[in-house]
Amino acid sequence: MSRRRMMRLGMSMRGLGYHPAAWRHPSVPADGTLRFEHYVRSAQAAERGLFDMIFFADGIGIRERDEPKGSLARSGYELVEMEPMTLLPALAPLTKHIGLVTTASTTYNEPYHVARKFATLDLISGGRAGWNIVTSWSQAEAQNFNRAEHLDYDTRYERAAEFVEVVKGLWDSWEPDALIYDRASGVFYDESKMHLLNHKGKHFQVMGPLNVAGMPQGRPILVQAGASDPGREIAAASADVVYAAQDNVASAKAYYDDVKGRMAKYGREPGALKIMPGVRTVVGRTREEAQAKFDQLQDLLDPLVGLARVYASLGDLTGFDLDGPVPEPQRPPQVRSSTERLLARARAQNLTIRQLYQQSVAGGFCLIGTAQDIVDGLQEWFEAGACDGFNVLPTHLPESCEDFVDHVTPELQRRGLFRTAYEGATLRENLGLKPHLNRYSAAGAVSASAAE
Amino acid sequence: MSRRRMMRLGMSMRGLGYHPAAWRHPSVPADGTLRFEHYVRSAQAAERGLFDMIFFADGIGIRERDEPKGSLARSGYELVEMEPMTLLPALAPLTKHIGLVTTASTTYNEPYHVARKFATLDLISGGRAGWNIVTSWSQAEAQNFNRAEHLDYDTRYERAAEFVEVVKGLWDSWEPDALIYDRASGVFYDESKMHLLNHKGKHFQVMGPLNVAGMPQGRPILVQAGASDPGREIAAASADVVYAAQDNVASAKAYYDDVKGRMAKYGREPGALKIMPGVRTVVGRTREEAQAKFDQLQDLLDPLVGLARVYASLGDLTGFDLDGPVPEPQRPPQVRSSTERLLARARAQNLTIRQLYQQSVAGGFCLIGTAQDIVDGLQEWFEAGACDGFNVLPTHLPESCEDFVDHVTPELQRRGLFRTAYEGATLRENLGLKPHLNRYSAAGAVSASAAE
Repeated sequence: MSRRRMMRLGMSMRGLGYHPAAWRHPSVPADGTLRFEHYVRSAQAAERGLFDMIFFADGIGIRERDEPKGSLARSGYELVEMEPMTLLPALAPLTKHIGLVTTASTTYNEPYHVARKFATLDLISGGRAGWNIVTSWSQAEAQNFNRAEHLDYDTRYERAAEFVEVVKGLWDSWEPDALIYDRASGVFYDESKMHLLNHKGKHFQVMGPLNVAGMPQGRPILVQAGASDPGREIAAASADVVYAAQDNVASAKAYYDDVKGRMAKYGREPGALKIMPGVRTVVGRTREEAQAKFDQLQDLLDPLVGLARVYASLGDLTGFDLDGPVPEPQRPPQVRSSTERLLARARAQNLTIRQLYQQSVAGGFCLIGTAQDIVDGLQEWFEAGACDGFNVLPTHLPESCEDFVDHVTPELQRRGLFRTAYEGATLRENLGLKPHLNRYSAAGAVSASAAE
Repeated sequence: MSRRRMMRLGMSMRGLGYHPAAWRHPSVPADGTLRFEHYVRSAQAAERGLFDMIFFADGIGIRERDEPKGSLARSGYELVEMEPMTLLPALAPLTKHIGLVTTASTTYNEPYHVARKFATLDLISGGRAGWNIVTSWSQAEAQNFNRAEHLDYDTRYERAAEFVEVVKGLWDSWEPDALIYDRASGVFYDESKMHLLNHKGKHFQVMGPLNVAGMPQGRPILVQAGASDPGREIAAASADVVYAAQDNVASAKAYYDDVKGRMAKYGREPGALKIMPGVRTVVGRTREEAQAKFDQLQDLLDPLVGLARVYASLGDLTGFDLDGPVPEPQRPPQVRSSTERLLARARAQNLTIRQLYQQSVAGGFCLIGTAQDIVDGLQEWFEAGACDGFNVLPTHLPESCEDFVDHVTPELQRRGLFRTAYEGATLRENLGLKPHLNRYSAAGAVSASAAE
C-alpha cells in the first residue's frame, strides 16, 4: 500500500506577524522584531508543530511610504527588523529539525555571496537551508543601492535567471567525495573533483570555485514565488518549493496544473516541486471566538495605517468620513488597475472606507474559525489537487503560530493529513524531495554507465 | 588610585589555525572548517579564557594558486570554510560575553547590506558585534565578482573610506529613543528622530534609513588593519581597534605612536582606539616541549605547500634539493621586493630551501616557550607602549586556543595584566571604549545646551 500523501507546511515568520496592527496587540512584544527571543519563541513553536520550515520574507529598505502623511510612524509594520540571513544562522543551534528559509534578492546581491552564505547555513543547520529567490520591486530598495529607479521587469528577471544558474554552478564546485583529508599522504582534496565554474554571462562573470563544500542537502532548497509568466518558468525549471498566492481553490488548481505542466520540458517530475500557497488563519475554540480575535486586530488598525493601504489606488482619503462611502479618486491614481478593482468591490458590496481598508488586510486565502473549520478549508484545497501544502501567514506572533500548533496541527494529524514526527534529517528529506545530484558526479555516472 | 591598564586579547579563529599544516596535526579535525562544532569549541574556549573577542579573517574566494602545480590540493589552508558573517550569528547564542568580529570587504559589498547584517549581529549577540574592514586584494576574488583584475589601490581605499562613512551614517538612522511603541496612541516611532541619510557620493548613493535599530552598542565595533598610510588615516579617523602586524617591539612602538598621533586631528582621544598586533604563540610546560610542538607542525608541512609559500618571490623551486642552498631565481619574480628580502635573509643565515619556507610560516611576532616566556614577551611590548593588547594567532585549533587559555591566561592574570572576569555587558564596554553617541542626538544635545 502506498504511503498517503502528506501536507507540507511552512510558517511565515516575518516581523510581528502579517496583520499591520499586530504590534498593538496585548500579547505581542511591540519591540519583538529587534529582540532575538521573539524569533526563538516562534521558531521553536513551529518546530514543536512539526512544520517543514520557517520562512522569512524580506525587504532591503523600508518600502512603505509616509502617505498619507503621518501613517508611517503609526505603522509598526516592516519598519525595523532583523536581517534574516543573519538571524537564521542564530536560530539554527536552537532548533533541530525545522527548515530555515529566507529571502535574498538577485537584483541587489552577488551570486558568490549568496552561494557562500546559504551553503554555510546548510552546514551550520545540518541540512536545513532554503533560499527564497526574489528580484525586489520597490523604489525604496533601489535608492539604497545606488539607483534612482528599480531595474525594469525584464532585466530583473533575466538577471535573476542567470544569477540562479551561477549559484547552482558554484554549489556544485566540489563533488561530494572531492575532499579526502588524507593526513598520511598530505592530499587534502582530489584535484579531478574540484571544478571551476568559469561563468561568463551577460550579467555575471564568476570564476569559482566556491570556497564552501560538503552541504548536507547537496545544495540548499530553492523557493520561489512563481507568480508571473517568467516566474512560473523559473519555478518549473529550478524551484523545489513555490510560495504561491491564490485566493480561491479554482484559481489555485489552475495555477498548480499550469506550473506542474511546465516541468516536463525541463526533465522534471511533478513531485520534484512543492506548491504551497499562503493562507491566513485565525483559530478559536468557537467560530465566534475566532472572529472576535480577528475583530480585535481590525479594531486596533489605526485609520491612517488603513488609509495608507489604499493610498496608491485611491489617493488621500484622510478628509473623508471613514464610515461613509468610498469617493471617486480626486486625482489620477498611481496604480490604475487596482483602483478599478477596489472601486468595483466597494460599489458591489456597498463598503465604507473603513470596511474597504479592513478587507484589504484580510485579503487572499483567509480562514477564520475553529480548528475543524480551518482544516476543512485546507483539506479542500489539498484534496482538490490545488496545492502540496501551505505557508501559514500568522496574524500576530508568537500567539497565532502557537494557536496553529496547539489546535490546527492536531486536527490535521487526526485526519492523517500531516506528519506526527519528522521523517528525515534534512529539509530536503522532510519535503520528500530526491537527493541533489552534483552535475559532475552525474556526468561521471552517466559516462561510466555508458562505458559498461 | 587609578585602575591598572589591562591588556586586550583577541583570538583569531579562521579555519584550522594559522599553520598551513594544521589539518595534518593529529589533534585537529581535518574537516573542521566545515563542521560547526569545531568553531563552537574554540569560541567557547576563548570565552572561558575571557578573551575580548574572537576574530575571523576572510577571503571571498580561494586566493592561493596552484603554483607549483599540485600544491593547492595538498594545502588544506583557506580552501573550504564557513562564511564568517553566517557563522558568527550561530555562535552568538552559544556564547555570552565574547566579542564576535568578522571581515567584510568594502570592494565587493554594498554598504546597506553590511550595515544591516552587523546591526543584526549586534542585536542577536546583545552588543558583541565587530566589523573588520578590508578592501580585498587578490585577483581570485576579483574574478568571482565580475572583474578580470582587482581594483587599483587608490580606488579601493577611496571606496572604502566612503563605504565606512555610509555604514556609520546608516547606523545612526534612528536615534536611541526614536522607537516609542505607544500602543495606546498608536504611535510606533517619533518622526523627528528617524533620519534619512540621503548620501550622494562618488561610489555610493544611499537614501536610508536603515531598517534595523536599537543596537546595544549604539553601533558595532570597527576593526581595521591600518598598515598603509591611507589605512592608518582611516584607523585614526574611525577605527575602534587596529589589528596590527609588527614583528619587533621597536617597529611596533613606532607604529603605535604614529597612529595614535594622527587621532587628535579627528578630535579623538588616544584611548578611543585599541591597537592589537598579531602574535603567534606555542606554549609548553618546558621550552623543549613548546619547541617540539612547533617542530611537529613544521615536519608535517608538505614540501609542495612550503614551496608554494615562496613561489611568488622565488619562482618554481621544485627541481632543487630542499636541503641545499636557495638558488637565484630562474625568471624575473612576480613580487620583486620580497625576492630581495628573502634572498638576503637566506644568504645571511645560510638557509636551505626548506629552512627558508619553514621560516616564512613562523613569520612576524612569534613566541615559543613556557607560559612565563610568552607572558614575558607580551608584557615587554605592552609595557613599552607598543600596543594595547594582542590578537593571538593559534597554530592549530582548537588545541592552541585551549593551550593559551589553560596556561598563558592564568599567568597574565597572576601578573595583573589581564581581567579575571568580564567587566561589561558589551564588547564596547569590555574594550573600555566610551558609549557611541548618535550624531543626531549629539547635535540635539549641543543645540539644546547652546540655547540655555
